[in-house]
Amino acid sequence: MSIQFPKSEYPRVVIISCGFGGLQLAKSLNGAPFQVVMLDKNNYHTFQPLLYQVATSGLEADSIAYPIRKIFKGQKNFHFRWCEVKSLVASDNKIITNIGEVAYDYLVMATGTTTNFFGNSEFEQKAMPMKSVTEALNLRSLILQNFEKALLANTDEERQALMNFVVVGGGPTGVELAGALSELKNHVLPNDYPELDLKQMRVILVESGNELLQAFNQTNQQRAKTYLEELGAEVRLQKGVSKFDGRTIEFKDGEKLLSKNLIWGAGIKGVLIDGFDETVINPRKRLLVNDYCQINNQTNIFAIGDVACMVQPNYPNGHPQVAPVAIQMGELVAQNLIRQKEGKSLQSFNYNDKGSMATVGRNRAVVEAGKIHFGGWLGWLVWMSLHLMLLVGFRNRIVVFINWLWNYLSYDRNIRLIIRPFTPKEEN
Amino acid sequence: MSIQFPKSEYPRVVIISCGFGGLQLAKSLNGAPFQVVMLDKNNYHTFQPLLYQVATSGLEADSIAYPIRKIFKGQKNFHFRWCEVKSLVASDNKIITNIGEVAYDYLVMATGTTTNFFGNSEFEQKAMPMKSVTEALNLRSLILQNFEKALLANTDEERQALMNFVVVGGGPTGVELAGALSELKNHVLPNDYPELDLKQMRVILVESGNELLQAFNQTNQQRAKTYLEELGAEVRLQKGVSKFDGRTIEFKDGEKLLSKNLIWGAGIKGVLIDGFDETVINPRKRLLVNDYCQINNQTNIFAIGDVACMVQPNYPNGHPQVAPVAIQMGELVAQNLIRQKEGKSLQSFNYNDKGSMATVGRNRAVVEAGKIHFGGWLGWLVWMSLHLMLLVGFRNRIVVFINWLWNYLSYDRNIRLIIRPFTPKEEN
Repeated sequence: MSIQFPKSEYPRVVIISCGFGGLQLAKSLNGAPFQVVMLDKNNYHTFQPLLYQVATSGLEADSIAYPIRKIFKGQKNFHFRWCEVKSLVASDNKIITNIGEVAYDYLVMATGTTTNFFGNSEFEQKAMPMKSVTEALNLRSLILQNFEKALLANTDEERQALMNFVVVGGGPTGVELAGALSELKNHVLPNDYPELDLKQMRVILVESGNELLQAFNQTNQQRAKTYLEELGAEVRLQKGVSKFDGRTIEFKDGEKLLSKNLIWGAGIKGVLIDGFDETVINPRKRLLVNDYCQINNQTNIFAIGDVACMVQPNYPNGHPQVAPVAIQMGELVAQNLIRQKEGKSLQSFNYNDKGSMATVGRNRAVVEAGKIHFGGWLGWLVWMSLHLMLLVGFRNRIVVFINWLWNYLSYDRNIRLIIRPFTPKEEN
Repeated sequence: MSIQFPKSEYPRVVIISCGFGGLQLAKSLNGAPFQVVMLDKNNYHTFQPLLYQVATSGLEADSIAYPIRKIFKGQKNFHFRWCEVKSLVASDNKIITNIGEVAYDYLVMATGTTTNFFGNSEFEQKAMPMKSVTEALNLRSLILQNFEKALLANTDEERQALMNFVVVGGGPTGVELAGALSELKNHVLPNDYPELDLKQMRVILVESGNELLQAFNQTNQQRAKTYLEELGAEVRLQKGVSKFDGRTIEFKDGEKLLSKNLIWGAGIKGVLIDGFDETVINPRKRLLVNDYCQINNQTNIFAIGDVACMVQPNYPNGHPQVAPVAIQMGELVAQNLIRQKEGKSLQSFNYNDKGSMATVGRNRAVVEAGKIHFGGWLGWLVWMSLHLMLLVGFRNRIVVFINWLWNYLSYDRNIRLIIRPFTPKEEN
């Protein structure tokens, strides 16, 4: 059965998922002679860079999510359907979803990535991912629940397992989360749990490579490590995890550590639907695209953002999986669709890299743009301002700003609520 | 197994639940020679009067919930445990919880109320209650999900069932919710769903009595009805529901109405634990207490707030189940515990009724205090100011204020997010 849309004389562009890329693409097609159909399993756009602040009780989930229908209010050629897309039938120019079929003239995969456990089912079942709003809320619940349980622990060992937090993966997510957990330890939890000795709480960031923030300048890598250590986190480089039964983490070097909190930020993989040829999928489940974001040189199927892998001279492994690439690819595909229609030639993607940044804690962030790199209070201010600007929705910006101001002045994190308790899988 | 607490030379007051009453009691015992133990199945206090705004996408859940540990930060004689209390063993002065036993010297039931379906299992399974944060979030999801589904409906009948909203119960909750739903209909949903004819949406408030807001002055009752009708809601008095299969509502007078949205605000009952003698429980599951809030004249077991029923000359059926009664009872029990310890006589409860209010929509609320009663814009302003003042936490007050200002200026409700989809029980 086909999902119905209002009749249109224009070709239909179906966009799967409203992340940074899909959102930009749909916006850039406002007023263009296309019918834009957006499909997403959530009815909101998620501002992923701030998920770690939701997980650590610093921000409301509702202030980093924004209703898709509201973003496109008044865009007459835009239609949203809340559904999960299952598979592609390229031969019929249609996709299959859980609520019916959708025919397309152009299809854009903007599905982003999900956590990659590299096939390890133990990690998949027992480690905590943090790539969606619900996952961040589950993590928030788990952190708070384990402190409540630590109060009830009968043995020191049990209490220590509940208070050991291990973050795997030294990329921006891992660094930011380890920093935020350390701030909880230093400023918030001692007030909440005067009956516990918070010195017992350990935050351990584990990275298999030689440095944190591998994509960053060396000075900034070192800065991030120093910042984390200043906050009391332990940074373990060249260290990998091999096993986790829900209670004991085993490292590749044989070390064992009791912990009921293993947070997984060590890898991502593309979110795919069935029906793509294996030859266009790389090992990280990214779709191989040409310079126009077209898959397999097909002229009507595109991939943009994190799920796309465009090999270009400066980017032999594809572009970094960050919001600016997705946004620029979304913009490019929109422009090319319009150019094509006007009989003009297509333009190649040319990434305008404006820089990178990551924050560790109050007054501590690293920023780089070209040859410029700096950290500290200024970095932190730049990080905050840019993230505020990028947030969708003026109300969200105000609410996030007030929360940040509040958290800064009070050294507090207010949203430590267990709204829906999380049930961890029991250890063996 | 007993739950451990720090040793204390003082008698232990165990308070079950941190609603308005329990919160006030524990605060009033700050610095007093008692060990205060608070038990709650949530780690937060819920500001129940604003739940309907969470359900209708106007406020974040996180801004009307407040972490209990934060409320009592620095109160040295206060200890919180996150647990569910199962039963009372009065003979041993202890209670049983899901995490162990707790001995008490004084026990205070401050457990409040839950939705009363009066034994009708169909309503219990298929109607939506709205007495907790999770229930309000479920309702928010259901409302939004049903509009997404209305877009996909194959028949007009199906679409109408998804767009008919029936609220049962003409008390403040029902009135406020019907008003908020009407505002969604008038200002928000038409922008979100240009493909739907929002005139089809119906909001019907059903009340079995002769008037809305039975506890209110007659002029205000009439005002509330007029306000609702101005907003486009249908008010049906002297009407009761008898059946609901998830799709069709059958009324007591035989009328049938297609609706997948039956919201239940028609009754409440006390939340009890096992172990109380039947003779102290009234038909609405309230615990009968004397003028000192003592149950069965026992000197060490109390009930306060909504779950308590104190028959006094002016209140032959107990006091109204509203926050001010709970707060004043909490204060009374605290003072009496202290007085008792000082060898002074106990004081009787004497309710200081400061008035009532309910809001219907923007610029429309009814307020009364003694012989004064008014409505309209002034009532609405008073309603807002008082609710802002009563909210726990300065950050929450700011966030709620900004949301209200935003909603007022933009005629919008920003938080229409389906964070965790709700799965309704299928119709037969």
